[in-house]
Amino acid sequence: MSDRIVECVPNFSEGRNQDVINAISNAGRGIPGARVLGIEPDADYNRTVLTIAGEPKAVSEAAFRVIEAALEHIDMRSHEGEHPRIGAVDVCPFVPLKNVTMDDCVDLSKELAIRVSNELQIPTFLYGAAATSPERNLLSDLRKGQYEGFKERLDNGGPNLPDFGPREWTDIVSKFGAVVIGARNILVAYNVNVDEKDARTAKIAGSLIRSTGRLLKQDDGRRTRIPGMLQMVQGMGLPLEAHGISQVSMNLRDVSVTPMHIAFEAVKSIVNDHGTQTCGSELVGLVPLSAILESGRWYAYDGCEDDEELVNAAIKGLGLDYLGEFDPKQRIIEWALERK
Amino acid sequence: MSDRIVECVPNFSEGRNQDVINAISNAGRGIPGARVLGIEPDADYNRTVLTIAGEPKAVSEAAFRVIEAALEHIDMRSHEGEHPRIGAVDVCPFVPLKNVTMDDCVDLSKELAIRVSNELQIPTFLYGAAATSPERNLLSDLRKGQYEGFKERLDNGGPNLPDFGPREWTDIVSKFGAVVIGARNILVAYNVNVDEKDARTAKIAGSLIRSTGRLLKQDDGRRTRIPGMLQMVQGMGLPLEAHGISQVSMNLRDVSVTPMHIAFEAVKSIVNDHGTQTCGSELVGLVPLSAILESGRWYAYDGCEDDEELVNAAIKGLGLDYLGEFDPKQRIIEWALERK
Repeated sequence: MSDRIVECVPNFSEGRNQDVINAISNAGRGIPGARVLGIEPDADYNRTVLTIAGEPKAVSEAAFRVIEAALEHIDMRSHEGEHPRIGAVDVCPFVPLKNVTMDDCVDLSKELAIRVSNELQIPTFLYGAAATSPERNLLSDLRKGQYEGFKERLDNGGPNLPDFGPREWTDIVSKFGAVVIGARNILVAYNVNVDEKDARTAKIAGSLIRSTGRLLKQDDGRRTRIPGMLQMVQGMGLPLEAHGISQVSMNLRDVSVTPMHIAFEAVKSIVNDHGTQTCGSELVGLVPLSAILESGRWYAYDGCEDDEELVNAAIKGLGLDYLGEFDPKQRIIEWALERK
Repeated sequence: MSDRIVECVPNFSEGRNQDVINAISNAGRGIPGARVLGIEPDADYNRTVLTIAGEPKAVSEAAFRVIEAALEHIDMRSHEGEHPRIGAVDVCPFVPLKNVTMDDCVDLSKELAIRVSNELQIPTFLYGAAATSPERNLLSDLRKGQYEGFKERLDNGGPNLPDFGPREWTDIVSKFGAVVIGARNILVAYNVNVDEKDARTAKIAGSLIRSTGRLLKQDDGRRTRIPGMLQMVQGMGLPLEAHGISQVSMNLRDVSVTPMHIAFEAVKSIVNDHGTQTCGSELVGLVPLSAILESGRWYAYDGCEDDEELVNAAIKGLGLDYLGEFDPKQRIIEWALERK
């Protein structure tokens, strides 16, 4: 395995047709130095989240081929799904994982965006750390109006025109839409299980811990917020009917600011105030080794420095195997990359 | 009333003997341009909090005379009380209120400290925004070891020697100790009433809202923190036995960051989660007009710009008169200064 690891998480707009999902996912395979580590389709969203990781240039090549395959297999003119999207590949972020800086990921984003626009004639936007101005930082802003409103934006000359590629409604653009490419920190999707069916305390905990906290409204429409406890965390409580329990479902947008064990202990502490118990937690997708080691250091004995012991302490302390087996060899990005 | 207003809050080490309290408080009176607006003795602490406000030079003169009177009337060799202190006047902060900058308050602090050391031969420390280095910012650090440990600190040459004045254990130093003078933002002591006797949910709310949050401990002594919801807030829940209710008792260390109505609504929201109700709130001491106007804007009708209406909306919305009359003419610093 290379000493330098970047993660790339293309989200493409097909989550139902398994043949299309396979065709696009497989386009990212077979490049030495890069591996497809996760494929997570969502039928309601009609969208699939692909996790690719490895050596920077190889990962960028894989991302290009995925976008190329999406142009071939997806036609946005007939696409519908619950998740907002602006193109056949909606968003394609690069994430620095090991011996790679955010600046490196910004460079990768720009190179890929230029290549996609030049070789495939697809409009590309840059976002996150790669944004060309602070107002273009947020994906949600660049995506406003979605695929359906994109022709009008191009015709009107804005707002937010693509950074590269065509600014006319060509055949290719009408089939693909546009893609938003960029650089961001790792995002960990992490859910804490709460032993109750109706999500009553899970909802309370979710609205107390998420960074945006609770919204207060006056009758005349004025609003203010009570801030939440955790920084860089999105979250909400919901019932997990299949298991007869509830969850506080979270996105940890920067695990160096709010690590998993702080999120877990915060939820536990709040639901315990109500006499309710937690029952482990759940990681969605893959997680960088550093994130799980940091939580391991809290649950392991003082001074433990062995990676495997720390990982096991994190699994046990966070109860990551409560809902099903948690195989660290498949779920930790660096370890998954090392597998033959 | 002058256009420029500074507040000064000397804390002196007598809270039981009314004659001494009067003598020291009265020393601050009679200076044109400055007024003593509040005298709050605490018998358990054996300490009195004096609130002086007005034109900067006049307030500084009043503070000097209070320190001079404390040197005359208090002997630290026989002082005891629950609150930590390093001298007959423990701390003397200047607070910018109107047309006065923090830099102005830093200048006032330094001038007063030099004058106290030169004319009264009392050791003085500078803290807060007036600190001579970042490590000397916190009162609690400068006060470590208290009066009783101060001789040893001087004998040992540290840590934290006074900025000005004698560094030997003279007769005056043994009688007075030292005084910590500095500049800080306004601090609002604000308590939310909770309708329960045992402070169960008040304690829960206190530990969720205070900036330091909740402390987690491992058996081997390792510690970490779950952060709290509100920034720049100290707080704890406790029973208020005389009234048969409880309180979340807070220091709002920067009302521009966490205003009173956000603190109130946060506590209300958390105790309501537990089926418990709030019953108004309580302001300790005086409050700047701007702080009460900001909360008034949340509780008043949209677009209200009349100061008196906004103040009344804040009193009603926060329930400031639940435990007793709240007279804004005595409790709002600017309005108290305007009274004949």
